[in-house]
Amino acid sequence: MSLTAKASVTSYIESNKKRFLDELFELLRIPSVSADSKYKTEVARAAEYVKTSLEQAGVDKAEIYPTPGHPVVYAEKIVDPKLKTVLVYGHYDVQPPDPLELWKTPPFEPQIRDEKIYARGSCDDKGQVFMHIKALEVMISTGGPPCNIKFLIEGEEEVGSDNLANFTRQHKEKLKADVILISDTAIIANDTPSIDVGLRGLSYVEVEVTGPNHDLHSGVYGGAVANPIQILCEMITKMKDHNNHITIPGFYDDVMVLSDRERGELNKAPYNEKEYKKELGVEELAGESGYTTLERTGIRPTFELNGILGGYTGEGAKTVLPSKAFAKISMRLVPQQKSEKITQLFTDYFTSIAPKSVKVRITPHHGGEPVVTPTDSPAYRAAAAAMEETFGKKPIPTRGGGSIPIVAMFEQELGLKSVLMGFGLDSDLIHSPNEHFGLFNFFKGIETIPLFYRNYAAS
Amino acid sequence: MSLTAKASVTSYIESNKKRFLDELFELLRIPSVSADSKYKTEVARAAEYVKTSLEQAGVDKAEIYPTPGHPVVYAEKIVDPKLKTVLVYGHYDVQPPDPLELWKTPPFEPQIRDEKIYARGSCDDKGQVFMHIKALEVMISTGGPPCNIKFLIEGEEEVGSDNLANFTRQHKEKLKADVILISDTAIIANDTPSIDVGLRGLSYVEVEVTGPNHDLHSGVYGGAVANPIQILCEMITKMKDHNNHITIPGFYDDVMVLSDRERGELNKAPYNEKEYKKELGVEELAGESGYTTLERTGIRPTFELNGILGGYTGEGAKTVLPSKAFAKISMRLVPQQKSEKITQLFTDYFTSIAPKSVKVRITPHHGGEPVVTPTDSPAYRAAAAAMEETFGKKPIPTRGGGSIPIVAMFEQELGLKSVLMGFGLDSDLIHSPNEHFGLFNFFKGIETIPLFYRNYAAS
Repeated sequence: MSLTAKASVTSYIESNKKRFLDELFELLRIPSVSADSKYKTEVARAAEYVKTSLEQAGVDKAEIYPTPGHPVVYAEKIVDPKLKTVLVYGHYDVQPPDPLELWKTPPFEPQIRDEKIYARGSCDDKGQVFMHIKALEVMISTGGPPCNIKFLIEGEEEVGSDNLANFTRQHKEKLKADVILISDTAIIANDTPSIDVGLRGLSYVEVEVTGPNHDLHSGVYGGAVANPIQILCEMITKMKDHNNHITIPGFYDDVMVLSDRERGELNKAPYNEKEYKKELGVEELAGESGYTTLERTGIRPTFELNGILGGYTGEGAKTVLPSKAFAKISMRLVPQQKSEKITQLFTDYFTSIAPKSVKVRITPHHGGEPVVTPTDSPAYRAAAAAMEETFGKKPIPTRGGGSIPIVAMFEQELGLKSVLMGFGLDSDLIHSPNEHFGLFNFFKGIETIPLFYRNYAAS
Repeated sequence: MSLTAKASVTSYIESNKKRFLDELFELLRIPSVSADSKYKTEVARAAEYVKTSLEQAGVDKAEIYPTPGHPVVYAEKIVDPKLKTVLVYGHYDVQPPDPLELWKTPPFEPQIRDEKIYARGSCDDKGQVFMHIKALEVMISTGGPPCNIKFLIEGEEEVGSDNLANFTRQHKEKLKADVILISDTAIIANDTPSIDVGLRGLSYVEVEVTGPNHDLHSGVYGGAVANPIQILCEMITKMKDHNNHITIPGFYDDVMVLSDRERGELNKAPYNEKEYKKELGVEELAGESGYTTLERTGIRPTFELNGILGGYTGEGAKTVLPSKAFAKISMRLVPQQKSEKITQLFTDYFTSIAPKSVKVRITPHHGGEPVVTPTDSPAYRAAAAAMEETFGKKPIPTRGGGSIPIVAMFEQELGLKSVLMGFGLDSDLIHSPNEHFGLFNFFKGIETIPLFYRNYAAS
């Protein structure tokens, strides 16, 4: 891209900012919550909207593929079959918006406040997907992209991408590419760009503990019958020791141990404990003994309670000894842990510590494998150079705490590596009330993506 | 009551059975859930219905007294001021019906199945209150009650009778009586009548644990920040040792220790462990070491989780590290424990074991004091003789596990003892889905109550 071409990109973005936002807002208004079946038609509506947006941006063709779950959107812009091909992956589904009462403005009524777009999915991942769609439009309007681009935008990322592996296997030819580009991660700060080069895997289980076969009056039966809430709490407590080390036998067996040098590199990333605690409103941090915060969230596996429910939780007091209690638990995995093995180890241990006074049922949800992506590939270097150009600073390679299980799956099924060039911030409250995405970040993404293609095509 | 009079009571009941049920069903249809403010007008409607029913039964006057919470219904039938006076206490409010999906038929659409009335409140306490109203009608229609009767039917029993103590203090003259009669307890079995002579007290607290100031993505922050669900579980676990002994310092200090003879007496009550476990569907019981089931539910204090909630509990998976988790906890107290002291001991201990990584908030709900009622009073003997006459067996004095805090309050404010002549069964699922009340029990109550008055008036 010549300097003139770059200037025309910038000026095209500048003169279309309002329309880009209006179009994104349309997408954000669709409550495409994949986890909850009552939103099924809304999820489908979001897929349609993504397809139409891709068509309007100028792809050659865009298609919707139904799956047993939510549909996949595929599109492509083939400039010349002899040129390189980039497969852009993203997702148009979003996390459930609960707890609703904590949102300052409704999750599906996007609003700009303090230069940020507030809406469920604004950052994760509708906003970041939309950067790619608009970057394509920009490129087509200013001379066309310098290589081929394919889009694979799915609707089940937030529920484990259950049907994507199958879709990928069935469409290997169509998905053929040289590299995968994904914007579903964060940078360290708006003045400190970074690129994720490692992602944790995931095991997600739901456990249910049943005591008596029906709810009892706690005054009549209390003290004589095992209370499933108490038992569940005791079992959860047994999952960690006093060093916050996970006690599941074999849990750490496959954990890749980093060298002192690697740990040293990792801990060079900007981190201010005082700021971190202040932002979270906590007086003290808590985690596995012997590791720093960056290590705890980057290279160590975790065991987290995501939800718990049992008995009466409404207003006022009810003296019930409930029949059941359940919890949702996720474990983040690091290389070389395997999701299926960890889920099995969890199941064996959790079952083994259940007292005879209760019954336990364990339901595994989706899992995902941890990955490490290369920092010496042409695509990584193209992304790093593009970010350096728009941010004015070399991006720092980081190990992200979150999981994008499909990265490992793509590697296995398509033999392709991914570049994780995300533009969000950890403070964007993705998965939380008041999720937002900075206007700076949205437009910075649209500006950076064409430079990635320029660099990559030239490499 | 002559044999002829008794026969006419029986025949009056026989010829009015259907109407009695129809009238009770009207009351059961009103969702008078005192714990939930959205039912406020329904609770008021139930009070009106009780007042009208008392008027139709033949009281001299019936009145509704508003309180800062739900109203109190008062009524009286004064036969002759020189005769003895019995104050009948009951409540027309009910427990919340959740979880709704476990009801076979809707909680507020009463239905008879297998000779039982299924509805929220059918046993606790609308059905038992209605026995008294209908017993009055029966007595008036067959010669009039042999003593004065006053009715005090409140609408806040299920939420701690917050305003009743104040009402009682303000209406001491109006409530003057010789004894209080309450039907809000159970008998051992339909062929084994019993009368409660001891009731446990209650401390009820809600605890909230807050970690970060907003919900976080568990992948990004998990492992580095205290998870309030995990911490709450760990704190709950610390409340009991491996003998299921409550660890709150000072908790047992005031517990009245029964003599071996008293424990022996108590353990003579019919109890079949195999049947008990089968009815509850549990393989093993669990409770404080060194005590029998009858002791654990009768003479020992307890610590029970009534509810717990935190994080995402909807369908599917959400990887959230929640900001808050809370639990509802009730402790049953035995003589000479004091509710206020126990709540304070709990608060001190729970606060002391909270790690610095979280904030804890404790909200005490209502409390109630434990009581023991005499077995050698004229009123107790009158009740025992009445039951013996209708059941054909002497009732067994038992120590109930539940709490009726107002019994201690009445003793303090009015100087009156209570007789706890209940007609429910422990298996009636009060406070649970599918609460029911046997037709046998309902009509047995209506038949027995007039005999109590006859015996008591003659004593």
